[in-house]
Amino acid sequence: MSFAVTVDLVMLTVRQGALSVLLIRRAIDPFRGAHALPGGFVHEDEDLDEAASRELAEETGIDSAGHLEQLGSYGTPGRDPRARVVTIAYLALLPHAPTPTAGTDAADAAWLPVSNLPPLAFDHAKILTDGIERARAKLEYSPLATAFCPEEFTIADLRQVYEAVWSAPLDPRNFHRKATSTPGFVIPTGRSTTGDRGRPAQLFTRGPATVLHPPLLRALPPSPPA
Amino acid sequence: MSFAVTVDLVMLTVRQGALSVLLIRRAIDPFRGAHALPGGFVHEDEDLDEAASRELAEETGIDSAGHLEQLGSYGTPGRDPRARVVTIAYLALLPHAPTPTAGTDAADAAWLPVSNLPPLAFDHAKILTDGIERARAKLEYSPLATAFCPEEFTIADLRQVYEAVWSAPLDPRNFHRKATSTPGFVIPTGRSTTGDRGRPAQLFTRGPATVLHPPLLRALPPSPPA
Repeated sequence: MSFAVTVDLVMLTVRQGALSVLLIRRAIDPFRGAHALPGGFVHEDEDLDEAASRELAEETGIDSAGHLEQLGSYGTPGRDPRARVVTIAYLALLPHAPTPTAGTDAADAAWLPVSNLPPLAFDHAKILTDGIERARAKLEYSPLATAFCPEEFTIADLRQVYEAVWSAPLDPRNFHRKATSTPGFVIPTGRSTTGDRGRPAQLFTRGPATVLHPPLLRALPPSPPA
Repeated sequence: MSFAVTVDLVMLTVRQGALSVLLIRRAIDPFRGAHALPGGFVHEDEDLDEAASRELAEETGIDSAGHLEQLGSYGTPGRDPRARVVTIAYLALLPHAPTPTAGTDAADAAWLPVSNLPPLAFDHAKILTDGIERARAKLEYSPLATAFCPEEFTIADLRQVYEAVWSAPLDPRNFHRKATSTPGFVIPTGRSTTGDRGRPAQLFTRGPATVLHPPLLRALPPSPPA
């Protein structure tokens, strides 16, 4: 039994306050004209991570993602009508939305808000859902939100990432207190924004923490039964 | 470019107080005679998860694992000298060590403590290391340790799981207080052990929590820089 192996990319960024994903429109069959995650076949001499990085660079011109991790493998028989194809999906979190440079098999590429998506080719809707849920969950226990931020950011910038990914408004003062009191999450740079958008705000950079303790929970965990 | 696709299983349990993994000895080339993770080729009509469940059943006679999750995909060129093979690795956590039933390509199979392993075939040492680290990390933030326990367990049973997986002794009174005060982690059954091994101990069952809050941390997170 022989398989084709592809990589597909769930590339997320926060754009105009909305969690957004890069989608291409397929220029070839199957699913010609449909939206899909960018991706392609793994080459003979490539490791899986290398193939993901290459596809990312081809789609966006970005040489290294802010954050690129394996999301999972998808191989249900029939997911691709051409052949038995297993795809290794990767999750990339980008600090800004680069202008996509559509590859040869993509009619065009664009950033679309995840709250209002068209139908997707193959099982890409399932893969995208898994990627968004991974990002949402990781923001609670890890400093991953900073992967969506530029090198230096304000606490309001960071809060807007959380609000976009979680699709929920957060209390600014409460968030500021939690973010700045969580050990190793953010470090003040000593610099401030220039005040052209209101009063100056402190600028921070990413701290050394790999886990957030205490976590920034989306909601309180369920109470134990009485 | 065509690939073969396999699944490999990192099956962990706590056995005689030690975190242990099921390894086979290969009966065929390549790496004939070497220890390896159990696994095999994905069949034509199978989804990846189905192939993992089938391999688990073939190796152990277990129909459903206490916990079975995708660990990651490994596809470095040359990892298998026969052909280009991508393997999807799964992590299974078992409440007890079933007697292995070696398949046709395995000379024999045995549970070995992870603290004292022989060299492994292919890139299986790397896959096993990733599986152990996944289990260690998940015990902090999830109730996954209960997947290593029988239906009803004492807090000492649960502590011994943590001690085995983390390779570290834990203070019994401190652990008891944390485990029983973490919302939704464990629920008292109202029953106790019979006192043939000392005084009776309360029996618990797994609670509804999907995350532990506060977490049971292995060590305090790094302090922020001064």
